[in-house]
Amino acid sequence: MLKSLAYTALLVGGASCQNVATYVNPAVPTGVPIEGNYTGGLRPQVHFSPPQHFMNDPNGMFVDANGTWHIYYQYNPTGNAAGNQHWGHATSEDLYHWVNQPIALFPPEEMVYVFSGSAVVDVNNTSGFFPDQDNGVVAIFTLARYYEDGSAGPQTQNIAYSHDGGYTFEYYDGNPVIDSTSSQFRDPKVIWYEDHWVAVVAWSQEFVVGIFTSPDLKNWTHASNFSHHGLLGTQYECPNLVKMPVRDEDYNIVDSKYVMTISVQPGAPLGGSITEYFPGDFNGTHFTTLDDATRLTDFAKDNYAAQYFYGLPDDENAVNLGWASNWQYAQTVPTGNLENWRSAMTLPRANYLTNATRIGWVVINELYDPTPVLDAPLNESTIGNGTVTVDYSDVSSNALYIEANVTGLNTTQLTSYSTLNITFTSPASGEALRSGFFFSGDTPFFVDRGLIRGFDNVFFTDKFSVADVYSDGTGKTLASWSVQAFIDRSIAEFFVDGGVHASTVLFYPTQPLTSASVATRDLPAGAEVSVAVWSVASAWAEYENENGTVVGNVTQSSSSSTSSKRYKMYEGKFTA
Amino acid sequence: MLKSLAYTALLVGGASCQNVATYVNPAVPTGVPIEGNYTGGLRPQVHFSPPQHFMNDPNGMFVDANGTWHIYYQYNPTGNAAGNQHWGHATSEDLYHWVNQPIALFPPEEMVYVFSGSAVVDVNNTSGFFPDQDNGVVAIFTLARYYEDGSAGPQTQNIAYSHDGGYTFEYYDGNPVIDSTSSQFRDPKVIWYEDHWVAVVAWSQEFVVGIFTSPDLKNWTHASNFSHHGLLGTQYECPNLVKMPVRDEDYNIVDSKYVMTISVQPGAPLGGSITEYFPGDFNGTHFTTLDDATRLTDFAKDNYAAQYFYGLPDDENAVNLGWASNWQYAQTVPTGNLENWRSAMTLPRANYLTNATRIGWVVINELYDPTPVLDAPLNESTIGNGTVTVDYSDVSSNALYIEANVTGLNTTQLTSYSTLNITFTSPASGEALRSGFFFSGDTPFFVDRGLIRGFDNVFFTDKFSVADVYSDGTGKTLASWSVQAFIDRSIAEFFVDGGVHASTVLFYPTQPLTSASVATRDLPAGAEVSVAVWSVASAWAEYENENGTVVGNVTQSSSSSTSSKRYKMYEGKFTA
Repeated sequence: MLKSLAYTALLVGGASCQNVATYVNPAVPTGVPIEGNYTGGLRPQVHFSPPQHFMNDPNGMFVDANGTWHIYYQYNPTGNAAGNQHWGHATSEDLYHWVNQPIALFPPEEMVYVFSGSAVVDVNNTSGFFPDQDNGVVAIFTLARYYEDGSAGPQTQNIAYSHDGGYTFEYYDGNPVIDSTSSQFRDPKVIWYEDHWVAVVAWSQEFVVGIFTSPDLKNWTHASNFSHHGLLGTQYECPNLVKMPVRDEDYNIVDSKYVMTISVQPGAPLGGSITEYFPGDFNGTHFTTLDDATRLTDFAKDNYAAQYFYGLPDDENAVNLGWASNWQYAQTVPTGNLENWRSAMTLPRANYLTNATRIGWVVINELYDPTPVLDAPLNESTIGNGTVTVDYSDVSSNALYIEANVTGLNTTQLTSYSTLNITFTSPASGEALRSGFFFSGDTPFFVDRGLIRGFDNVFFTDKFSVADVYSDGTGKTLASWSVQAFIDRSIAEFFVDGGVHASTVLFYPTQPLTSASVATRDLPAGAEVSVAVWSVASAWAEYENENGTVVGNVTQSSSSSTSSKRYKMYEGKFTA
Repeated sequence: MLKSLAYTALLVGGASCQNVATYVNPAVPTGVPIEGNYTGGLRPQVHFSPPQHFMNDPNGMFVDANGTWHIYYQYNPTGNAAGNQHWGHATSEDLYHWVNQPIALFPPEEMVYVFSGSAVVDVNNTSGFFPDQDNGVVAIFTLARYYEDGSAGPQTQNIAYSHDGGYTFEYYDGNPVIDSTSSQFRDPKVIWYEDHWVAVVAWSQEFVVGIFTSPDLKNWTHASNFSHHGLLGTQYECPNLVKMPVRDEDYNIVDSKYVMTISVQPGAPLGGSITEYFPGDFNGTHFTTLDDATRLTDFAKDNYAAQYFYGLPDDENAVNLGWASNWQYAQTVPTGNLENWRSAMTLPRANYLTNATRIGWVVINELYDPTPVLDAPLNESTIGNGTVTVDYSDVSSNALYIEANVTGLNTTQLTSYSTLNITFTSPASGEALRSGFFFSGDTPFFVDRGLIRGFDNVFFTDKFSVADVYSDGTGKTLASWSVQAFIDRSIAEFFVDGGVHASTVLFYPTQPLTSASVATRDLPAGAEVSVAVWSVASAWAEYENENGTVVGNVTQSSSSSTSSKRYKMYEGKFTA
């Protein structure tokens, strides 16, 4: 293993070529993972969160030839608000158990920060960095310069390469690879297209996604622009261009298309940050949309800057995860003062395109197979109209996963009271996280965090809803409906109808929520509701030492022990 | 004046041609205005609301040659939820004082309802209905048939004509003028283009706005479609195509463009219903957008199906008002049970296009001149950092109008605490409606109704915000900022920077809000904040008899008395 560049820089100091040097803030440890305590009452147990301090966008995500998933992330290792950006790093075998790795990218110099970007595996050594290996990793990212007076200097696109599979990087000595005088030009995401590399980069304040091509990741040519599409907010950030399968109603792959995602911040309709997407065609240089519609990845407001993993084959679902927060309150949520960390990633999501009833192209957000963290089922019931209540105060993770599948619906006999509600409550404080579905009329699914009282902020919107396509209003209705709910201490995720709609919702209770109920009402005769409730095994607890500290970078063997917990296979609606 | 068609139909019963007959529910009065009591504690005093029962979309809006503004509205005269649609009618000389008129359009037969549509003045008698007059009015609207089993029949486009300036109508005997077998084809809005009429009509569930042309309002030709643009939700409704001036920074008209608005319901990002718009060019048959952006008319969720008045000259601002509600809770808000009415219209808004800093084309929503309802100023202050507090418990309307204009801002010295907050509170209950602006950073303006407790509903979202363009992030910043707030018992409207952003927010307090404050903090030296607070004179109180009842259809003389109340001219930022 090569010596970490960061470590090198500490030794050699100001090298003659500034782009090859690294500036290490003395407060930031190098070469070893940062330790973390994951036992706090608000700390998610199966969502990734950094060991300490502030995290935002996921970066550089790829899956290597061994099936190891790598995420990097915008990381301030010295504080609980944004700033001092490095690339943190973690790896996983299953996307639920994450191992904290040493910081992967340090700033090249003082007052220059490593902003968001992506990574690829350069199997064919197009870059020339890897004459003797097929697992070389190249990271492509923005370096953002700031001046002493606080003003912003240029943002340029740069690369670094890793000979050890993504654990340590060296800056390329020909940086920047895409130069710029703009202070708002960032977040390169690179994919491979047939015979060349393609990067999408945002001119944030011009609402333009630039599309660039390169044979070698070093020399880039501007090919086209995709501009002023959808909701503008006040900035475009973190564009993604991703190829994904198109599946029919039987889950068969019938085609593949490209999807452009753009994260907008601030100024989203729900306030702050949000991500929109555009299904389309891509010919290697130009992206064209399939229609002029604007579609959102989530119906709540706590999923931003999601990135798609590089390295998955075209005939598999794409996989993404996002930053589970919103800039409106990311830096003020109570976890910072209470537990010395801020922000988690969303759960992983498997993605494909489909042509949903009436509303057309939809990127499905399937919850990625959660069986690695599912414990024994706490409850499995089949009800018509009724209530399943589960006391999970004994579940040490305080995390729960619920599936409810409704079948046999006679849709002509629904009433305006025909509902399915999932509610999580704290008997101690009376706080509640409510969600539910109205089967008739406008068929909205809602989530309401307004009865949770641990965080007061004028931007922390209480209620979210989405009009489901369950009833298409033209006479053709579906006789089944499903929802999955995953609650993890201070973050809940909901997947409606196998991921046709999805949402990530932060909440900060003053007391743990420990009681869950699934309640149906006024469903017509013949309706069958199968409810399953699993306790969730903490992924982080497996890595804790006797002091509750997760040291990070443990060997792979520890994570393989999770396979014994796979009591029951996941039975999501769209799973093949 | 011609005899009301409704009255005729009552006498003649089932005429041989069903399209010329009218079905009058015995519970619905004809020929006279419906009486109303506007004294309820939640009843707006200068917003239009129907005398009794349920209202939704504004319809048929036009201004006649005398300057009288006509609005019609989707009206259920027999209940406090949607259903049994007629066209209610009201007129105004100033857009604030409204006179209730007799119901203008009754269903042609049982189980057929009069849905939304528009009206034009056929000055040149293109229709042939008006050989001897130049003030003939033609209404164009959807008739929606329902069957005994509750299923929906066809929605077709029909016309009716008025010889008395829009007070009474006769159905055209050649209806429908645009036939259809679709049960989701509705809401025609007609304008005049050079030498022909143009109608936009929504195929709601196909997300298509059809554009039709006609020489005479009777014979229509399909010309083009505008489809799958912007946020789809699950239905398109109430399209508008409107020509409006383009103004530069000095308020000079430099061009004119067309704007297509589409109301989406349900499935808006904030939940339920919302209106989006697309600036563009129109050549008489085809509409093309200026860019691919999706823009929303409001940043809250209580302004839907707004319509633009017909009959304004091209060199004046367009004028619109919308339905101040959201289908998610329109039929359950507490005014129905407490005060026997549901829904108000927004305040009138004057509209033009401009190219705002960075975010491009914006339809400005100026508050239409409110001086006809402004009483004497309660407070006029100039502050730097400080608080202006106004007790308005003695204001009989319980309505207030506030302007705050900030000038002389040294934008390099702003801090994250530099704020201006406007708060309305009930000292009796502790309830509060909060709003405010953060001058630095992402510069959001927010409104929070979460501390108001008179209405509990899982869709009644508490918080709204918008990223203002006050700071453009590229170094060019503005040294001034302004906000107007209009609060009217259970409805508040906010206009930021002269209408660059606007919002309409319903709220239902258990006790009246009677104290208002404007508070600034951490503004740099040199900043000057001029604050003016007006009490608002109830428009409805002028028409009440000794019992508190508004009979409606009073003579014009009563409204002319309002001119004496114009103590001070409106000084909105964008007013010439």
